[in-house]
Amino acid sequence: MNNSFGNIFRLTTFGESHGKAIGGIIDGCPAGHKINLELISNEMQRRKPGQSKIVTQRKEDDAVEFLSGIFEGLTTGTPIGFIIKNKDQKSKDYDHLKDSYRPSHADFVYEKKYRIRDYRGGGRSSARETACRVVAGAIAKQILKNIGIHAFTTSIGNISLDENYNLNNPKNIEKSIVRCPDNIVSEKMIEEIKKARKNGDTLGGIIKCIISNMPIGLGEPIFNKLHSELGRAMLSINAVKGFEYGSGFKGTKMKGSEHNDIIKKDETTKTNYSGGIQGGISNGMDIFFNVAFKPVATVMKDQKTINSDGNESIIKGKGRHDPCVVPRAIPIVEAMAAMVILDYFLINKTKTL
Amino acid sequence: MNNSFGNIFRLTTFGESHGKAIGGIIDGCPAGHKINLELISNEMQRRKPGQSKIVTQRKEDDAVEFLSGIFEGLTTGTPIGFIIKNKDQKSKDYDHLKDSYRPSHADFVYEKKYRIRDYRGGGRSSARETACRVVAGAIAKQILKNIGIHAFTTSIGNISLDENYNLNNPKNIEKSIVRCPDNIVSEKMIEEIKKARKNGDTLGGIIKCIISNMPIGLGEPIFNKLHSELGRAMLSINAVKGFEYGSGFKGTKMKGSEHNDIIKKDETTKTNYSGGIQGGISNGMDIFFNVAFKPVATVMKDQKTINSDGNESIIKGKGRHDPCVVPRAIPIVEAMAAMVILDYFLINKTKTL
Amino acid sequence: MNNSFGNIFRLTTFGESHGKAIGGIIDGCPAGHKINLELISNEMQRRKPGQSKIVTQRKEDDAVEFLSGIFEGLTTGTPIGFIIKNKDQKSKDYDHLKDSYRPSHADFVYEKKYRIRDYRGGGRSSARETACRVVAGAIAKQILKNIGIHAFTTSIGNISLDENYNLNNPKNIEKSIVRCPDNIVSEKMIEEIKKARKNGDTLGGIIKCIISNMPIGLGEPIFNKLHSELGRAMLSINAVKGFEYGSGFKGTKMKGSEHNDIIKKDETTKTNYSGGIQGGISNGMDIFFNVAFKPVATVMKDQKTINSDGNESIIKGKGRHDPCVVPRAIPIVEAMAAMVILDYFLINKTKTL
Amino acid sequence: MNNSFGNIFRLTTFGESHGKAIGGIIDGCPAGHKINLELISNEMQRRKPGQSKIVTQRKEDDAVEFLSGIFEGLTTGTPIGFIIKNKDQKSKDYDHLKDSYRPSHADFVYEKKYRIRDYRGGGRSSARETACRVVAGAIAKQILKNIGIHAFTTSIGNISLDENYNLNNPKNIEKSIVRCPDNIVSEKMIEEIKKARKNGDTLGGIIKCIISNMPIGLGEPIFNKLHSELGRAMLSINAVKGFEYGSGFKGTKMKGSEHNDIIKKDETTKTNYSGGIQGGISNGMDIFFNVAFKPVATVMKDQKTINSDGNESIIKGKGRHDPCVVPRAIPIVEAMAAMVILDYFLINKTKTL
Repeated sequence: MNNSFGNIFRLTTFGESHGKAIGGIIDGCPAGHKINLELISNEMQRRKPGQSKIVTQRKEDDAVEFLSGIFEGLTTGTPIGFIIKNKDQKSKDYDHLKDSYRPSHADFVYEKKYRIRDYRGGGRSSARETACRVVAGAIAKQILKNIGIHAFTTSIGNISLDENYNLNNPKNIEKSIVRCPDNIVSEKMIEEIKKARKNGDTLGGIIKCIISNMPIGLGEPIFNKLHSELGRAMLSINAVKGFEYGSGFKGTKMKGSEHNDIIKKDETTKTNYSGGIQGGISNGMDIFFNVAFKPVATVMKDQKTINSDGNESIIKGKGRHDPCVVPRAIPIVEAMAAMVILDYFLINKTKTL
Repeated sequence: MNNSFGNIFRLTTFGESHGKAIGGIIDGCPAGHKINLELISNEMQRRKPGQSKIVTQRKEDDAVEFLSGIFEGLTTGTPIGFIIKNKDQKSKDYDHLKDSYRPSHADFVYEKKYRIRDYRGGGRSSARETACRVVAGAIAKQILKNIGIHAFTTSIGNISLDENYNLNNPKNIEKSIVRCPDNIVSEKMIEEIKKARKNGDTLGGIIKCIISNMPIGLGEPIFNKLHSELGRAMLSINAVKGFEYGSGFKGTKMKGSEHNDIIKKDETTKTNYSGGIQGGISNGMDIFFNVAFKPVATVMKDQKTINSDGNESIIKGKGRHDPCVVPRAIPIVEAMAAMVILDYFLINKTKTL
Repeated sequence: MNNSFGNIFRLTTFGESHGKAIGGIIDGCPAGHKINLELISNEMQRRKPGQSKIVTQRKEDDAVEFLSGIFEGLTTGTPIGFIIKNKDQKSKDYDHLKDSYRPSHADFVYEKKYRIRDYRGGGRSSARETACRVVAGAIAKQILKNIGIHAFTTSIGNISLDENYNLNNPKNIEKSIVRCPDNIVSEKMIEEIKKARKNGDTLGGIIKCIISNMPIGLGEPIFNKLHSELGRAMLSINAVKGFEYGSGFKGTKMKGSEHNDIIKKDETTKTNYSGGIQGGISNGMDIFFNVAFKPVATVMKDQKTINSDGNESIIKGKGRHDPCVVPRAIPIVEAMAAMVILDYFLINKTKTL
Repeated sequence: MNNSFGNIFRLTTFGESHGKAIGGIIDGCPAGHKINLELISNEMQRRKPGQSKIVTQRKEDDAVEFLSGIFEGLTTGTPIGFIIKNKDQKSKDYDHLKDSYRPSHADFVYEKKYRIRDYRGGGRSSARETACRVVAGAIAKQILKNIGIHAFTTSIGNISLDENYNLNNPKNIEKSIVRCPDNIVSEKMIEEIKKARKNGDTLGGIIKCIISNMPIGLGEPIFNKLHSELGRAMLSINAVKGFEYGSGFKGTKMKGSEHNDIIKKDETTKTNYSGGIQGGISNGMDIFFNVAFKPVATVMKDQKTINSDGNESIIKGKGRHDPCVVPRAIPIVEAMAAMVILDYFLINKTKTL
């Protein structure tokens, strides 16, 4: 279950950062859908390393090879197998990690849990695996077509969009390399990232995701509420520390009489503090949520740590890394959201005959 | 899958607020453990209605009848079936909801999803079902014995514990009816709740949970990271709007060089911004997380809404309700945490031979 | 997973033979279906002990109490919880088993696996749990309505129906207490059972099940073929030793040119050696399969065995037992078949949009 | 769930007969095990086409490329991804099947279920996918090391081993191209297959599998009995029509007093009609079961059928096919058995602390 995500529409992935390839199997994809490979490639471009000057310079073209499940351009209902070859690994860069645990990385816990680890580039714990999520998400998006799923950066370190910022035009997101749709704030964020990089340091940030044109009725009480699954999906992305939807943490300061979303005659609600989900089930209003990303753990500075024989040592910052993962995490957030929505759409088909 | 929680240690529940009984089945409980029924009863007391003047006055003794799986005081490895009878339903109080949808409740979405609903007391969407979670959690806690799981209230509306508050003595939690371990802040919170109740209004708040004495190595990459599952568990509790662990949303403002937790020779870390989890796996440090609860949707005020034939109507605040669910949610948060930890402890046993 | 059966339509059960009650939770039952409680009760009558002179004389009325999930006579889509109280346990009859393992029973393996067991009446390993399956199956049957599911006895010990026997009228099944629709063969079977009982011995037999009016397309390649799941379902019933469908074991002696089912213009096939399933998917023809039941392990004779301290001992045949389980297993076979068909019907709804 | 098999040790597969590649992901493989690639390759040789004169002459070297999860020769606990390229497809041979349904093949039901199918070589329904099962089984076998899993041919068409045949030396199995360990019977079987091939016809047969040196305690009541899962596993293999274990169908003719396996002081049983499993749990005795394979559906003769516009047509026997799948199915039966045993071994680790 651990390398699989989803119930009916289900992705299973494999692969280490510096292995031969990463890849996955998409099971339960409905049959008869035209798959546009260019749209998948576009999503991969949004996530791939080396796409701009503010991300890691590892060069991967991240070309996806589909091996099954698509016949004459259409899904057949059989599992879609795919691989993405690793090309620009520089495993030598990681030799110093063989016996040493990087602070706030997964090195130490993998060693303790499995008693063995592929230390090259973080092995399985590297965010490289998220490329597979983007593949499955890109397919889910195509099947959901009428449903809009748009994520964007609302803060990088201390630079934030205005709290009441309204996304009028999703197209503005991709105009910014940091994927913040307000170009003034975007510029400030880019400066902040450059400054951090120059200092050998890293930044975190917050991503907001909006799902529009939602059907009513998706979400499965009690334990599989729609927002529980969205939360789980987002929290499974590397570096994520928090998730809130609708009014979120701020909603805890409101009074019930303010927070309640009055239902209007057209079945929409006057306000949307519920974030499009009530009792775990979509009510047709926009779903929106925030995802918190911690600053990247790999800094270009010397840090104290211990090595595998328990002695203290100094670890050097080496290799090619992102000073901030937020810009590249946008398509991952969207991909995970798309997978959840499609999966719950399919589950919902079984609730009445 | 929807009314089940957990993989190896798995709870499945049933029951509506005003049905004959609620109950559940606990599957996968390890064999040979002595079950102390009084400890279970204690946990039930902490959740039950009518326990203090700041919660709903519905009277339920919430006595649990165990029907199987425990023999001569020990778990046998077979499923533990249990029921809790509903006693003090006043279904008449809900007749006005038959054709009317309460704002920010699940009435509207259940009707749309299932085309039928048990409107009495919210039916399945009522928080009454959480009693079953407390039963399973109380058993999980007994099996985990050495691991400490303590939740407490850190804010109610605008009244908050100091951000750097340190829980020195978990016993102080239960000394407060609002379950805030600082007695000065606790008093203020109680006042705030009383004030809200007087105004026919309701409040939200935040619960913090600390899991101490954790074994290293629990958590399953990629999609079943320990915090993903904790997040999903918490987000499945009624009224929850957000989850963050470790540095959480605030961590997004930190630099990587500040945020990294330096590993010391004794394998603990100097700081704990990671919140006891790295790469989705416990590192032996305390796990801590925050859970955001929205204000209760049922207010004792008239509210506009629509009814099932699509016409506008006025809904009256009636019935017995909590002005704030946070105090009663404390044992639920602990129960869900205990189930996750035990489940992941059992899963982890299969990772090496 | 172990006490749950099914994917979308899923039964989870609990209960020991001599505990307070047995019961279960049916999750994923589609909403809006009228449930006829009398039809459920009828199915329970077909399985219950004491129904005729050739079965165990334990007296259980096996009344089912539904606790949730049905509102004003209709399923609501929420879990259906139910219990069946144990009434006529005579646990004293089992005191001699506390430290002794009955041959070909589960006593020995439960003790080894769990290091503890409820020895009274076989505990969880007793066929008493199958009553819960009949409840869930009776609900599944009502939802499937147009699909016919009929099981009947084809052999008891050495007495068999003619190999080419054709079930013309399913109503004849219930006219026979051994549930063999041919009244001459039925009489012989009853005599055979009486003779075995008089000798303190027991018999096995074979049940055939026919599922008619099947929709095309049910069954999920690769690992969840329709017949794999039917086989698994049948093999999970106590005392079952074998399963075959369509041409079965005899089909291995045929040539491909004889065995192939030629497809006709109306999309039916000329012959039906496939047993209604091709490539794991229903083709619309009748599904039929055979289930082999071993003779009951409890004989009314002294048998050698060992006890829990490893010493040899003699175990006496005591208690009230069936000389042959086949007549009472008929409704269980049908119930399991109904659950599989409904579950796969619901899964199939997700394969195309 | 449909293209995945297993709970803890779980294989997910993809791939069509004439696609670019087939492959799979093995999740939940315990960490730290040395993997001998040659042993995997040996198993693949036993299944591969073209291995002898009595099987299909399609030439595939069936080389497995491992892409992840094995580091410096050891399993790491992360998913093992692998692919097997398709090389010798002759898709042209299947052009005539584009609009025509082969009798007793899956063509018709795939078309009805998914409304689209990859008709080349049977697409996903081809037994080509079983190569992936052999990979996973070969890894499971290596981890189980002390447990012996040996399958062999007991009948081909009307030629059978003596019912009481005893497998003294598993090495004799591989000395026979039909994998029958008795060389006289083996010769007769080979003749029978040659004769069938000459007539453009095909044969079925029966495979017996023996699992020796079993630990006590594997198997999960109620619905996941060890034999239920073995049965499901075997029934999921292409062309299988039946499964029986222990005394099987013949056991239905025995009396209880004969059938009971008396437990001896050393905890073995005097007889083994139970087939090593009681109450769904292994008792330490050898497990043995039979699997029935129907004759191959592709015959080299003209057959009547219908095409996709509903008109009658004649289908010609073309392509390279096995006159009998039994010899090549031996390693598949063993692979599925190995996966079940390892999976249940891992599950059993969670039953007591």
